[in-house]
Amino acid sequence: MSGNTLGTLFTVTTSGESHGPGLMAIVDGCPPGLELCEADLQVDLDRRRPGTSKHATQRQEPDQVEILSGVFEGRTTGCPIGLLIRNTDQKSKDYSAIKDQFRPAHADYTYHHKYGIRDYRGGGRSSARETAMRVAAGAIARKVLAAEGIRVRGYMSQLGPIEIPFKSWDGVYDNPFFSADPDKLPELEAYMEQLRRDQDSVGAKITVVADGVPPGLGEPVFDRLDADLAHALMSINAVKGVEIGDGFACVAQRGTQHRDEMTPQGFVSNHAGGVLGGISSGQPIIAHLALKPTSSITTPGRSIDVHGNPVEVITRGRHDPCVGIRATPIAEAMMALVLADHLLRHRGQNAGVRVSTPVLGQCD
Amino acid sequence: MSGNTLGTLFTVTTSGESHGPGLMAIVDGCPPGLELCEADLQVDLDRRRPGTSKHATQRQEPDQVEILSGVFEGRTTGCPIGLLIRNTDQKSKDYSAIKDQFRPAHADYTYHHKYGIRDYRGGGRSSARETAMRVAAGAIARKVLAAEGIRVRGYMSQLGPIEIPFKSWDGVYDNPFFSADPDKLPELEAYMEQLRRDQDSVGAKITVVADGVPPGLGEPVFDRLDADLAHALMSINAVKGVEIGDGFACVAQRGTQHRDEMTPQGFVSNHAGGVLGGISSGQPIIAHLALKPTSSITTPGRSIDVHGNPVEVITRGRHDPCVGIRATPIAEAMMALVLADHLLRHRGQNAGVRVSTPVLGQCD
Amino acid sequence: MSGNTLGTLFTVTTSGESHGPGLMAIVDGCPPGLELCEADLQVDLDRRRPGTSKHATQRQEPDQVEILSGVFEGRTTGCPIGLLIRNTDQKSKDYSAIKDQFRPAHADYTYHHKYGIRDYRGGGRSSARETAMRVAAGAIARKVLAAEGIRVRGYMSQLGPIEIPFKSWDGVYDNPFFSADPDKLPELEAYMEQLRRDQDSVGAKITVVADGVPPGLGEPVFDRLDADLAHALMSINAVKGVEIGDGFACVAQRGTQHRDEMTPQGFVSNHAGGVLGGISSGQPIIAHLALKPTSSITTPGRSIDVHGNPVEVITRGRHDPCVGIRATPIAEAMMALVLADHLLRHRGQNAGVRVSTPVLGQCD
Amino acid sequence: MSGNTLGTLFTVTTSGESHGPGLMAIVDGCPPGLELCEADLQVDLDRRRPGTSKHATQRQEPDQVEILSGVFEGRTTGCPIGLLIRNTDQKSKDYSAIKDQFRPAHADYTYHHKYGIRDYRGGGRSSARETAMRVAAGAIARKVLAAEGIRVRGYMSQLGPIEIPFKSWDGVYDNPFFSADPDKLPELEAYMEQLRRDQDSVGAKITVVADGVPPGLGEPVFDRLDADLAHALMSINAVKGVEIGDGFACVAQRGTQHRDEMTPQGFVSNHAGGVLGGISSGQPIIAHLALKPTSSITTPGRSIDVHGNPVEVITRGRHDPCVGIRATPIAEAMMALVLADHLLRHRGQNAGVRVSTPVLGQCD
Repeated sequence: MSGNTLGTLFTVTTSGESHGPGLMAIVDGCPPGLELCEADLQVDLDRRRPGTSKHATQRQEPDQVEILSGVFEGRTTGCPIGLLIRNTDQKSKDYSAIKDQFRPAHADYTYHHKYGIRDYRGGGRSSARETAMRVAAGAIARKVLAAEGIRVRGYMSQLGPIEIPFKSWDGVYDNPFFSADPDKLPELEAYMEQLRRDQDSVGAKITVVADGVPPGLGEPVFDRLDADLAHALMSINAVKGVEIGDGFACVAQRGTQHRDEMTPQGFVSNHAGGVLGGISSGQPIIAHLALKPTSSITTPGRSIDVHGNPVEVITRGRHDPCVGIRATPIAEAMMALVLADHLLRHRGQNAGVRVSTPVLGQCD
Repeated sequence: MSGNTLGTLFTVTTSGESHGPGLMAIVDGCPPGLELCEADLQVDLDRRRPGTSKHATQRQEPDQVEILSGVFEGRTTGCPIGLLIRNTDQKSKDYSAIKDQFRPAHADYTYHHKYGIRDYRGGGRSSARETAMRVAAGAIARKVLAAEGIRVRGYMSQLGPIEIPFKSWDGVYDNPFFSADPDKLPELEAYMEQLRRDQDSVGAKITVVADGVPPGLGEPVFDRLDADLAHALMSINAVKGVEIGDGFACVAQRGTQHRDEMTPQGFVSNHAGGVLGGISSGQPIIAHLALKPTSSITTPGRSIDVHGNPVEVITRGRHDPCVGIRATPIAEAMMALVLADHLLRHRGQNAGVRVSTPVLGQCD
Repeated sequence: MSGNTLGTLFTVTTSGESHGPGLMAIVDGCPPGLELCEADLQVDLDRRRPGTSKHATQRQEPDQVEILSGVFEGRTTGCPIGLLIRNTDQKSKDYSAIKDQFRPAHADYTYHHKYGIRDYRGGGRSSARETAMRVAAGAIARKVLAAEGIRVRGYMSQLGPIEIPFKSWDGVYDNPFFSADPDKLPELEAYMEQLRRDQDSVGAKITVVADGVPPGLGEPVFDRLDADLAHALMSINAVKGVEIGDGFACVAQRGTQHRDEMTPQGFVSNHAGGVLGGISSGQPIIAHLALKPTSSITTPGRSIDVHGNPVEVITRGRHDPCVGIRATPIAEAMMALVLADHLLRHRGQNAGVRVSTPVLGQCD
Repeated sequence: MSGNTLGTLFTVTTSGESHGPGLMAIVDGCPPGLELCEADLQVDLDRRRPGTSKHATQRQEPDQVEILSGVFEGRTTGCPIGLLIRNTDQKSKDYSAIKDQFRPAHADYTYHHKYGIRDYRGGGRSSARETAMRVAAGAIARKVLAAEGIRVRGYMSQLGPIEIPFKSWDGVYDNPFFSADPDKLPELEAYMEQLRRDQDSVGAKITVVADGVPPGLGEPVFDRLDADLAHALMSINAVKGVEIGDGFACVAQRGTQHRDEMTPQGFVSNHAGGVLGGISSGQPIIAHLALKPTSSITTPGRSIDVHGNPVEVITRGRHDPCVGIRATPIAEAMMALVLADHLLRHRGQNAGVRVSTPVLGQCD
């Protein structure tokens, strides 16, 4: 299928550009009978929303989502759920200067070569604005998962050079960085202040965790759960790397060290990140993603125009100095979408499977 | 679609277990008129083949591939290409001891919970043997790409703690490690010798590069080229992490440092790894993948049996102490399959697009 | 993928119920650079629109479509095209009487058993209202096809017992029946008048023709052009039969009679309806479809309620006494969508194929 | 996905040409734990097999199927099932005369224009030989359905001008015509004798029925059960028309006549053919298909060669004078494949739905 649809049974199809009239999504395959209202989606949208922190773009978008179908008297009907968010704070003329120029490290150059035409206003389809609909659709996936006791949460685990250890889920959603360590907040604030003064941007690392996932989700061999997670997470703007469990640390590990031993009391460790052979093991699913520093900065850079002439580009407009700061809700949404799809796929093929072997949790 | 098919227009569907009668693949959507014979596939299969190095499993499989359809008088016809490899060196009784046990960190436990039944001989479908058909199908994709001047090559960039710098493509395929630095070979040999004595296994890092890719491949937003690469590479057994370009190094980078500036003479750098906004930029596509140490080792490990009782597991049979050693041809195949599919998808939608802007190469 | 998406490269995904807030569609994979505006879609929508003829439902819906994305400065950008139509003339309380009853021959009973919940207002998702978005999306497909010289047109070939011969395309769109024989109009009007007095409904037959289709479209073996047409046309509400070319008349034909002989001057006949081996032959593509009489009539019928008790059902609300009357634009849209998808798929795999054999037209 | 795969969760992918080394199929998504052996498939293959009746091609093919994967100790494992049938009775030189000619009404001309190259021996991929793998895969689908109490059966309902009424399922598989009326056999035999003397071929009509289908299968709006059946049945070689239930007879019916009324004792009639709103109603699913007379006859016909020159073509080789005669097992297989896929899709989305409304059978 074409590139703007994700999933097999539980699917989401999106459309919309940064400075067009609005964003749309159609979520198809949602199980019927689920309580759902716009407020369920708005909670997650508000966490991703621009204009809420001084460390993010100052574009003011209420991101008010409207459900146009698929819900009747407060419950899903099994029919496709249509979602609409109107764009309200476009300032398109900010972008006319770059109409014929390619911002370095931006998608301008590649869209131009692919399509021969591009909506240059705010990045068009390549803008991070597109991710609003991922979050809205992900909120529906979360409800599907919640009905099965599955919860997806994320936090920022590194900002530029600053590693942020996980301390507690409490308060993660209450600070603009999604830091799971409140003690790190002053350092993060200071870093961002300096970054602004430097007219620069920086990368970040996000960690996403799903708890309560039963063993069995994932379709070997190509549609493994970890492969589909890698696909979904890498499809987020600016993501350049994805790890499951120990990820690249595995390279230097030995088998005796990496393997997660099992006892009747549970798994002894979770180096695998909850996936074995492409199938969930019942342990928490853990993924890490690396986001690059955004290319939209006001420090001039060398580039060319559409005729091949050299130009010096300064990206004005309103941008995030660290796209990673708002990426946590997006990463959560993508993991939720993948898990919901695999939950349905697994049920479809294996509805009648019963095993007497106990499901292991994690040892203390 | 179900889990054993990859791709949209250029697709591969595989089947087969480690100790069943044989492996099959159907490659669909291959352009017609391409010269193709079994020897084209055998070259790549031989590079992945077990039994060729003392550092890999001693199972002796000729991996002789037979083309059963889709080729007529030495050329592809556009019809699906059927591939068959018979298994010849199964030693299934090696595995009867683990019939009712779950090897730690192996897919035994998850297959059991998913399907309620499993072919325990040699890992069944979860065995690395499955990757033979990826390599065979990938060889067809390579020919599709070669006709467009695109070449995919890989090398091992790290073995356990030993980083292996890229020196030259010459000789990469002539050593069992796919090392691009011949000077590292003694150190690698010594490391593997010690590993065997330790009855342990180790992880590895592989780097894959595609040259000659035109700008424009990749379908935003979900089927981005990098997202589909992440999916395909993560679907390889034992892979736990995927990076495009600078990958996780981006986290600590600044925008001024990461962005690949452009001049009329070409891109100044390639931190992005050849993908911008999910679309190929015309620069080399660069991906790295992390493979975990295999779980099949003879050092005893704690586990449970199908009844939930504690057991101590020793995995006998013939196994690779470092699955990464044979992973380079597999990673190349997966990248080739993704690129061939995106080449066709791009043509389908954008057949008539012509732009006058020059395609940039890389500056010296 | 889930049930509300059609196509592989050129796809349409729709949502929306009869009495919900509105209908949505996302058209993905449209080639870039195509001139497109809302008026292009409105022309087709107006032909399908309710309230325009006394022989159709009296619901007054302007069916005003809004393009929310994928078009920039009057041209498609290659990005997904978001479409929105708000419902404006819902009279939901007409339906409260049938909230717990199943209208005979309607989808009430099957939706209830499938989903356990249903939006009973006006049929919800099963309403013919859903087809508005097929027509809007089809209008985009038509523009893709027009750029290649392909035109899709249809007419009503039978209304109840009245066969309507094809005389000319002139005026087909100027009468409410899409009759290609103006002389039949008085008879058709009289029939519909009597039908209304009888408080009954009736079936119809529609014929759709595509001219200018090049040879080569269609993917053997499962995604043959005729198979995909059958799928798309049978997916229209109330359709119970699809024929390609001579269709069921083939049953009694002999090979010498059916086969379309070829001469250097062209094909001698077109019994095949323009498809051979699942691939377009370059002749006109001809399909016929049978629509059942709508079940929504005011003559009482026996049924049950959700508790299994017998009830007598009279369907009030506003309905079409012959859904076939408005079906011609819908059938055209579905054929156009299938052809556009296959045009792109064919290009993707066979972009470089050149043959010197002349393309045959039809002999005089 | 590419054209040789059918289905979403329960999928089949096939390859193979008439005169190549062999045919392959990969059946993916089959539920685990199902008893399955080669003999289960052979029963159906033998019913389709050439060389068994004097009214079919005299090619002698044992059609011995081999299961290469996905079955362990007599049960399906949930992994893809690989199937192989070697071709053994190719007489390719029969076809060299038509190497550069297009048989009228055959796929020669369209394959040539699509791919620029074709395997002309016996029709290559466009041969009815391809359907062997549909039957083998369909046999697996039948077992999935049988576990749910669903049975698919078919019969020939018309041969050329001779209508064959349904009398009883007894004996349908015991006569070469799949006639459900034993009294018609002499007339059918005589007709075929005369046809052979006339060196001609003829069309046929097949009826397929599924009993025991629960209400709820089918995914509105595009992947309706009837739409997917139409797709699957129209994808069979030579099929030119598909009807569900009353099909084209609906055109002349009135709503009061067509609608299937319901009482607590069951549905009063089944004009709908078991599908309402694209979803199974719990009544028997009934489909009819029209097969054209085969184009491969020895009566000369006008055509052109690859250079556009006029030629007179006589098709030698071994052919079926009525492809409809062997079509019943193929049509059954296709219906079974569609139902199995929809059974799994329905379970995936609606696993937890429970309704208290009784399922209606058919009234006596």
